[in-house]
Amino acid sequence: MVGYVKGRIRREDILSAAVAVYGEVGYHGASLREIAKRVGITHAGLLYYFPSKEALLAAVLERRDAADAERERLLGNPGLEVLRSFVALTAHNAQDRGIVDIYSRLAAEAVSPGHPAHDYFKRHYRDARACLVESFQVLARCGQLRDGVDAGQAAVMFIALMDGLQVQWLTNPAEVDMVASVRGFLEYVLAVPLDAEPVTGPAQSTVRS
Amino acid sequence: MVGYVKGRIRREDILSAAVAVYGEVGYHGASLREIAKRVGITHAGLLYYFPSKEALLAAVLERRDAADAERERLLGNPGLEVLRSFVALTAHNAQDRGIVDIYSRLAAEAVSPGHPAHDYFKRHYRDARACLVESFQVLARCGQLRDGVDAGQAAVMFIALMDGLQVQWLTNPAEVDMVASVRGFLEYVLAVPLDAEPVTGPAQSTVRS
Repeated sequence: MVGYVKGRIRREDILSAAVAVYGEVGYHGASLREIAKRVGITHAGLLYYFPSKEALLAAVLERRDAADAERERLLGNPGLEVLRSFVALTAHNAQDRGIVDIYSRLAAEAVSPGHPAHDYFKRHYRDARACLVESFQVLARCGQLRDGVDAGQAAVMFIALMDGLQVQWLTNPAEVDMVASVRGFLEYVLAVPLDAEPVTGPAQSTVRS
Repeated sequence: MVGYVKGRIRREDILSAAVAVYGEVGYHGASLREIAKRVGITHAGLLYYFPSKEALLAAVLERRDAADAERERLLGNPGLEVLRSFVALTAHNAQDRGIVDIYSRLAAEAVSPGHPAHDYFKRHYRDARACLVESFQVLARCGQLRDGVDAGQAAVMFIALMDGLQVQWLTNPAEVDMVASVRGFLEYVLAVPLDAEPVTGPAQSTVRS
């Protein structure tokens, strides 16, 4: 039992050290030896938990996925609630430079199909897009989206904005307000304030009959 | 004379090989030995042109700066002309995956103040922002910017959008249209079509007196 708990703590320590090292030198520049050194264990000791560099990266991304899933459970209903949760996520990220750094670097490294995190990011973008398209479509049906705004295009733009803000903010932290920019974008595309009450049914059905 | 020309060609070859290797393994993962091998010269031969890894990166960025300066000369007047030139730049980038890849990776790597390209990207963002703020301010004075759009915030958002689109496009090329998204954003913030004629003087002065 004690051994099991110690093993879990050691595993978490390795994952946290990996995130730190990726953030400093990128995934490709990171060596298992350096990560083992940070945790204060031998290279062989690390291989007991993670048999390869790819296995360690997969575990780092899985841990992030688990945190995301937990957060998504709290996302709320498609529409204004989901958009507000993205603003909250941005505010959360603005408190954690380390996570934003590793995410931005990995996303940029993983664009090539040969990278071990490529499929993860491909799926990650598709999931985020599907979630946002649904929300913008719901808002359009309720008359809460500005005329002329396309749900699919707004979703791609919103994700791009959030990603691009991260790199710009990491580079010049004092000059970029990520939360204000994300809110600003939503003000451009919404026909109602972000904090408005969600409409319970499609606007058309209230108008008809 | 022949030696001089050969030296310039060799120098250009090394810079191009460096861009290729950075694109594959990142700046931190790139070794001078690997770059020399690509050009078909020895490590010592490469050191004759570029005495260190940092010197080579500086030369790669200087070459990019020179190309940017040439392009900026063609940017046109602050206002719609400048915005149209950013759309044209996006269309140009969409034809050159390699350049977009290396730029995205380097920008994400260089967020930490210790990175040799950090000052370059800090300046790069400031220059782009200053150029865009000026254009949005000119448009606001001419009544060509939508009410409620802040020039400074729109500039940060526009740069973030362009950067974020690149990573998303590199990851899922068939699902992201960079040019359409950049145009779409400008439609959100402009009160006139992007292809409208620029107003010659401030709109207020025609209204007054």
